[in-house]
Amino acid sequence: MSFERAAELDSQDDLFGKRELFRLPKDIIYLNGNSLGPLPTIVLQRLDMVLNDQWGQDLIGSWNKHGWIDLSKEVGEKIAPIIGAAAGQVICCDSISINLFKLLASCLQLKPDRKCILSQKDNFPTDLYVAQGLQNLLGTVNCELKMVNASQLIHALSENVAVLMLSHVNFRDGAAHDIDILTKAAHERGALVIWDLAHSAGVLPLSLDEWGVDFAVGCGYKYLNGGPGAPSFVYINNKHHNNFTQPVNGWMGHLTPFNFDKNFVPAKGVDQFMTGTPPILSLAALDEALSLFIDIDVAQLQKKHMLLSEYFLDMVKQHSELNDLQLVSPRNANKRGAQLSFSHPEAYAICRAWEEAGVIADFRSPNLLRVGFSPLVLCFAEIGAAVEALAEVVGSEIFAESRFQRRLKVT
Amino acid sequence: MSFERAAELDSQDDLFGKRELFRLPKDIIYLNGNSLGPLPTIVLQRLDMVLNDQWGQDLIGSWNKHGWIDLSKEVGEKIAPIIGAAAGQVICCDSISINLFKLLASCLQLKPDRKCILSQKDNFPTDLYVAQGLQNLLGTVNCELKMVNASQLIHALSENVAVLMLSHVNFRDGAAHDIDILTKAAHERGALVIWDLAHSAGVLPLSLDEWGVDFAVGCGYKYLNGGPGAPSFVYINNKHHNNFTQPVNGWMGHLTPFNFDKNFVPAKGVDQFMTGTPPILSLAALDEALSLFIDIDVAQLQKKHMLLSEYFLDMVKQHSELNDLQLVSPRNANKRGAQLSFSHPEAYAICRAWEEAGVIADFRSPNLLRVGFSPLVLCFAEIGAAVEALAEVVGSEIFAESRFQRRLKVT
Repeated sequence: MSFERAAELDSQDDLFGKRELFRLPKDIIYLNGNSLGPLPTIVLQRLDMVLNDQWGQDLIGSWNKHGWIDLSKEVGEKIAPIIGAAAGQVICCDSISINLFKLLASCLQLKPDRKCILSQKDNFPTDLYVAQGLQNLLGTVNCELKMVNASQLIHALSENVAVLMLSHVNFRDGAAHDIDILTKAAHERGALVIWDLAHSAGVLPLSLDEWGVDFAVGCGYKYLNGGPGAPSFVYINNKHHNNFTQPVNGWMGHLTPFNFDKNFVPAKGVDQFMTGTPPILSLAALDEALSLFIDIDVAQLQKKHMLLSEYFLDMVKQHSELNDLQLVSPRNANKRGAQLSFSHPEAYAICRAWEEAGVIADFRSPNLLRVGFSPLVLCFAEIGAAVEALAEVVGSEIFAESRFQRRLKVT
Repeated sequence: MSFERAAELDSQDDLFGKRELFRLPKDIIYLNGNSLGPLPTIVLQRLDMVLNDQWGQDLIGSWNKHGWIDLSKEVGEKIAPIIGAAAGQVICCDSISINLFKLLASCLQLKPDRKCILSQKDNFPTDLYVAQGLQNLLGTVNCELKMVNASQLIHALSENVAVLMLSHVNFRDGAAHDIDILTKAAHERGALVIWDLAHSAGVLPLSLDEWGVDFAVGCGYKYLNGGPGAPSFVYINNKHHNNFTQPVNGWMGHLTPFNFDKNFVPAKGVDQFMTGTPPILSLAALDEALSLFIDIDVAQLQKKHMLLSEYFLDMVKQHSELNDLQLVSPRNANKRGAQLSFSHPEAYAICRAWEEAGVIADFRSPNLLRVGFSPLVLCFAEIGAAVEALAEVVGSEIFAESRFQRRLKVT
C-alpha cells in the first residue's frame, strides 16, 4: 500500500524528470546529497570541454577567450537568484572557512567599538574554529567568541556584539533558524550578521536582500551538486560595498590585477573579496551544475523535500522495528532543512548496515542517523524502499540483543 | 645551419620524449609554460576516473575509498622531492596568497618581539598585497611591511625583522636569488624566511631541508602543469612542527575532524595547515600531473632549460632585426629561472604579433617580452622556429616606423 502511495507521489512530482540529469549508480539509494551532491551528467561534457578545448587547446589564452577570469563572478551571479540576491553581490572562491575568516575580520573592522563574535554552541564546528583562529591572531582583547544555546541568542546580543554568525540550518538536527527575525534582532542591537547557508542554499527559499542580511557564505558541493570541494560562495550586501574591506588580499582582488602594482588597491564591489587564482576545474564543474537550477523555483524544491521527508516519517511509523528511532529534527517540516536526524543507541552500526543494504545515509557522532532529501535527485519510490531496508536492518538478528536490553531497561 | 644545431640538440636531449606526454596544439609554439603549464594527457584519464568512477559511482564514500581525504598530503609528498624536502613537510591546499597569509601571521607569532616583514620592492605583487592586508588587520604597530631593492636585502635585516619573504625567481626578469645565502643571513639576524617558489619549483634544483629554510610556498599550475588555478603547496620545515600555529583554522586542520568538537585542536605537523575542504577535481589534476616528475632529476630539467634559453639567445644574435631586444634577465644562465625577459619599446605589440604567428609568450607591463622555457614541453626545433618568427614579426612593416624613429634618436 505504501508503494502505491509512493507511485502516486512520484506521478504528481513536477521535478521527477530532474533525477535523469544525474549520474546515479543503479544499485544504491542516495540519502546523503546534503554531504556531497551527486554528479550532474552535464558536468562531464563541461569538464571535457575545459580540459580538451580550453586548457588543452588555448592554454593561457583561455583566461580571456573562455572567460576563466570572470568565472568566479559568473558562478556568483548564477547562485544569486537561488538565495534571493540581486546581481552584483555574490562571488565564488575559496572555502567556506576561509571566506568566514575574511568576513569575520571585516565585521570587526566595521564595528570598531565592539569585540564580540556571537554564535551558537552547536554551530557547524568549522565556523567556530575560524572564529577561534581569528581570536588567537587578534588577541582576546580585540576579538572574543561567545557561544550560547540557540534559545539564548537574542538575549546574548549585547552592545559588545559586532557580529552574529550562525548556520541557517543546523548540520546535526536540521533545525532552521528564522533568518529574518534574527537578522532584525541583531540589527536592532547594532550588530551585523553572517549567515552560513551550507545546508539551506538550494533547498530553502531565501530572501537575503529582502531580509537585509549583511553577509552570507554557502557551500558549492551539497545541494548545489558542484562536486567534491567545490568552491564556496559569498554574499556581500550592496549596502556594505563601499565600506567593506577584507584582509586576505591577493592579486585577484586588486582593482587592476594585470598592472602588477606593488600596492594593493581593492577592486570595487564583491570583486575585492577574491584572493588568489581560483581552481578552474572545480569552479567550472559547479558553474555547470548550477544550470540545473535555471528553470526551478526554490519553493518547488522545498515543497518536494518536505513531502519526501514526511513520507519517510509515515513509513517509519508503519514499521514497529523502527520504534527506537527518535526524531531529533523539528517535527514541523517548515522548521527544518532537507534532512531528518534520528537518535539511536546503535546509530553507527545501523548506518553501516543500511549502507550494506544499498542505502547511503550519514552517521553523526555520537548517536545520530542523518537522512538527507536532496529534492532534485530523489523519488518517493526510493524513500519507500529505503525505509523497508532500514526496517529489515534494524529488525535483524544483529540488533536483536541490543533491542532486548533496551526493553529490559524500560520495564 | 641553426636548424641543424637544433636537430643535434634535440637528438642529444634525454627529455625529448616527455613532450609526447602533453596535449600540445599542433600549430603553436608554447613559450608560456611559466604562466600555465600545458595539459598532461594522463590528466584526462584521471579526471575521467574521478568524475565517473569516484564522484559518479561511489559518491560521498570516495572520501575514504578513493583517498580524497588524504589527497592534499599525497600531493605534498609528491612535491617534496622536487623541492628537496624529506617526507611529512609539504601539503597542498588553497592559493599561494592564502598560504602566505597563514605563514606570515605564524611568523609574527613565532617572533613576538619583532614586527617587520621584509621583502623586495619587485617581489611578485600578490605576495606584497598579502603582507599589506595582514598589516591592515593587525595594525602597523604589530606588523610593518618593509620593501627594499634586492641589493639592500641583507643590509635591511634589522633586529625588528621577523621574517624575510622573497620570491626565489623574479617573475619579471627571471633573476634567481641565492636561497642558501639569504636564508643563512636571515637566520644570523634572528629572522625567519618564507620562500615563494612559484617560478622555480620544477625547473631549479632546490634543497630546502639542507638550506634550513623555514617555510615555502609554490605554484601548482606553472612548471608543475597541474591545471588552471591548481592549489598551491606549502613547505613547513620539521623544526617548526611543534611551535607552529596558523590562524586560518578550519575543520580539515583539526586533530580529529570527524569528531565535530566545538573547540579547535590543531592536527600534528603539516596537517594543521589545512583549512577547508580542498577542490578535489583541481587537486586530482595536479596529483596526476606530478607523475611526470617521478623518473626525473630536477638537475636534468635545469640543464635543459639552460640549453634552450642559450640556444634562443644564440639565435637572437643571428638576426639583426632583433638588435633592439634588450636582455633584462641575468646573462649567466645559472643565475636565472627558466625564462628570458627582453625589454623593447614595442613589447606589447610584438607579443601580440608573435602570437598571431603562432608563438605564445607573455607581455609584462610596461615593456617586457617574457619567454618561458618549460623543459618538459619544449624542443630545440621549436625554439629555432620561434626566433625565426620573432625576427619576421619585428622586421615587418608594422614596426618599421618605430624602428626608424629609435635609430633617429640614437644618431
